[in-house]
Amino acid sequence: MNAVILSIGDELVLGQTVDTNSAFLSEELASRGIHTVYHQTVGDDQSMIADSFRTASQAASIVIATGGLGPTEDDLSRQALADALDAELVEHPESADTLRAFFDKRGRRMTANNLVQAQHPLGTEMIPNSCGTAPGIRAELNGATVYVTPGVPFEMHAMFEQSIAPELPSSASDDNAQTAHRFILTEKINTFGAGESAIALKLGDLMSRDSNPTVGTTVSDGIVSVRVRSEHTSRDEAGAMLCQTIDDVENKLGHLVFGRNAVTIQQSFVELLKERDLTIATAESCTGGMVAAMLTDVSGSSAVYEGGWITYSNEMKTKELGVDADIINTHGAVSEPVARAMAQGVIEQSGADLGVGITGIAGPTGGTPDKPVGTVWIGLAFNGETEAMLFNLPGDRQRVRDRAAKCAIQLLRFHILGIDLKTLSWGKLAES
Amino acid sequence: MNAVILSIGDELVLGQTVDTNSAFLSEELASRGIHTVYHQTVGDDQSMIADSFRTASQAASIVIATGGLGPTEDDLSRQALADALDAELVEHPESADTLRAFFDKRGRRMTANNLVQAQHPLGTEMIPNSCGTAPGIRAELNGATVYVTPGVPFEMHAMFEQSIAPELPSSASDDNAQTAHRFILTEKINTFGAGESAIALKLGDLMSRDSNPTVGTTVSDGIVSVRVRSEHTSRDEAGAMLCQTIDDVENKLGHLVFGRNAVTIQQSFVELLKERDLTIATAESCTGGMVAAMLTDVSGSSAVYEGGWITYSNEMKTKELGVDADIINTHGAVSEPVARAMAQGVIEQSGADLGVGITGIAGPTGGTPDKPVGTVWIGLAFNGETEAMLFNLPGDRQRVRDRAAKCAIQLLRFHILGIDLKTLSWGKLAES
Repeated sequence: MNAVILSIGDELVLGQTVDTNSAFLSEELASRGIHTVYHQTVGDDQSMIADSFRTASQAASIVIATGGLGPTEDDLSRQALADALDAELVEHPESADTLRAFFDKRGRRMTANNLVQAQHPLGTEMIPNSCGTAPGIRAELNGATVYVTPGVPFEMHAMFEQSIAPELPSSASDDNAQTAHRFILTEKINTFGAGESAIALKLGDLMSRDSNPTVGTTVSDGIVSVRVRSEHTSRDEAGAMLCQTIDDVENKLGHLVFGRNAVTIQQSFVELLKERDLTIATAESCTGGMVAAMLTDVSGSSAVYEGGWITYSNEMKTKELGVDADIINTHGAVSEPVARAMAQGVIEQSGADLGVGITGIAGPTGGTPDKPVGTVWIGLAFNGETEAMLFNLPGDRQRVRDRAAKCAIQLLRFHILGIDLKTLSWGKLAES
Repeated sequence: MNAVILSIGDELVLGQTVDTNSAFLSEELASRGIHTVYHQTVGDDQSMIADSFRTASQAASIVIATGGLGPTEDDLSRQALADALDAELVEHPESADTLRAFFDKRGRRMTANNLVQAQHPLGTEMIPNSCGTAPGIRAELNGATVYVTPGVPFEMHAMFEQSIAPELPSSASDDNAQTAHRFILTEKINTFGAGESAIALKLGDLMSRDSNPTVGTTVSDGIVSVRVRSEHTSRDEAGAMLCQTIDDVENKLGHLVFGRNAVTIQQSFVELLKERDLTIATAESCTGGMVAAMLTDVSGSSAVYEGGWITYSNEMKTKELGVDADIINTHGAVSEPVARAMAQGVIEQSGADLGVGITGIAGPTGGTPDKPVGTVWIGLAFNGETEAMLFNLPGDRQRVRDRAAKCAIQLLRFHILGIDLKTLSWGKLAES
């Protein structure tokens, strides 16, 4: 069983948008033992799209196309599929009703344009869209099953999981010795606090190229993820090998690991707070609310997050958090005592168990020879004590802020886990 | 003049790596008047790669392939190109010397594997690699020029800029009436506050498929962007047509437009505050610091942003912002009077000119029949007055929070621009 993935849209062939859908779908298919023969991306050109459907349906037994299902004139996937099938476009009454209900519920008027989305080639089926207005289409072409899904990633993901994945072969076919499938299982182990080469050094031989499972690293926004990829003709065997290697990786990386696959550092931290029955509040200067936004991104965070302050100005630091104006005048707003006082002020004002204070220079302006852009002090407060750590973060404003927010969350995690902050190599602990 | 882009590698068809090279190359080509017909991605399969070269060379005059030039057994692009050309692989003495020097300089021993990288199909040229070990290859196949470059993005970028781009038509050749180049210029106009179909309705005939410039829409995180694409044999003419259509689009969409290309809604808003010499402070409940984080993302925002509160708990709303506990008890935390009181409290505490208060139900829990998930009240305060608007936002927690933050910023923009909030169709203004 194999597949072709088609991506449709001018924004893709013009290079205005990077296609992430093909990678998502390929990975989902590979984990089910389905090999992707190729990806193809074409623009909003009806005859090109139709040709792509024809060629793809001859090359593989499954074709998944994303994009071109919107309500506008440059959305041509349904017409192109109709051309490839030599079928008429007809309105699907149920989809039209669903569309009307979608707009009614939101108190918006449905336009004639929108009704185009309820059309499909005669003889094909509609696939419900649980997240948006464009239903998908399922068709049979040259013996292949063709799925057309929306290009918006979260709509496509939902449609894949709800309607396409259940139709694909599951691990059950594994036991069929006749199949020449190789099952490819992958897992991602996410770390924060060490660079990619430091992680590679810790992993050592685990990363050798010709081993199975293979172990590789990727970096995204400071998060170094270790990818383990296990391949075997038996799914069970592939799974067992995968688990063993995950254990090996996690043992070597220790507390730097915060979670697997889609787990974020904030999810891991909020879980930990819940487990330990602890609450937290935040005071942010250079990160300007990013730590708060990250924590409250986690569903259920209201149980552990009391609230926070963005004390961008010195006046706010003094007035809201009781940071002594003399301390700011003597040491500067970006300094160890201010980070400590912000963290302490947070606890006093909010009554939370843990407080964090972040003050730094995100740039591009505001740096000095003594305190260059990227200088960030993070203070932690708990039980009447405080601790503070200095970071010199590289990069531009976005990067400094992002890394500072993640450093703060990882520091808080380490504090709760009882890890001696002195052993950390990635920041400088204040001596006090 | 047109092009096909090929991406080669198992990691791509397995979905372990997102292909960013194709978008990079397409954008570079489009800016030089070269249309990308399609992208294709294939795995490390010699005959598939050879087929892709053949098909691509028949579809376009330029083929750029990335990947498969490494030293390992799964790097098969040079062999596949030799197959497509029906040519022998031969060692290129100069490239072999360069490789040896590369390893000597780093004190590393060159393996026999590495010497494979100095091979190329007989009759083709090598392209130097200034950043790594794999030279590229330039070949002629079926009348097309085929470039094979490394898959590592920074090596490919350097090779493209140093060796490929100089061979492509530049704007200088524009005046040469003999050339059949068509220059493609694009611009993106970003809007927030109306759905894709409503935007399409406003644009009307501008979006008709066969016009030039073409006008299309894309949506990303609630931002509907209008892409204008102008195509002409004269670069000046393409530019003039582009500007005219941009004007037409912006006239039709009015205040919904906040900026072009990479401009974000927060950049546009911070600029506006600076122009009008206004300051702002924020109080957030369901958005949990996202508005603050968005505003402080803009360099120089400290001139206009005073600070903010994340009042996640009712106690924080009362204690920090002076929201009357009775109001919360009577109307609930997610209510019009609380949104107004939060905004007013913000001004009183911070002294900012403008205050915003956001309170809502982000989900997935906390919804009620009266106030389902997605119910968000946004209050604005200014000059002792307040205004409040109700939104019913669809989607999951991330989406509700993201849209609520953007709604708040767009509402503030509209308020400053003097737009009557009653005319807005995307939220419900409180009668008062």
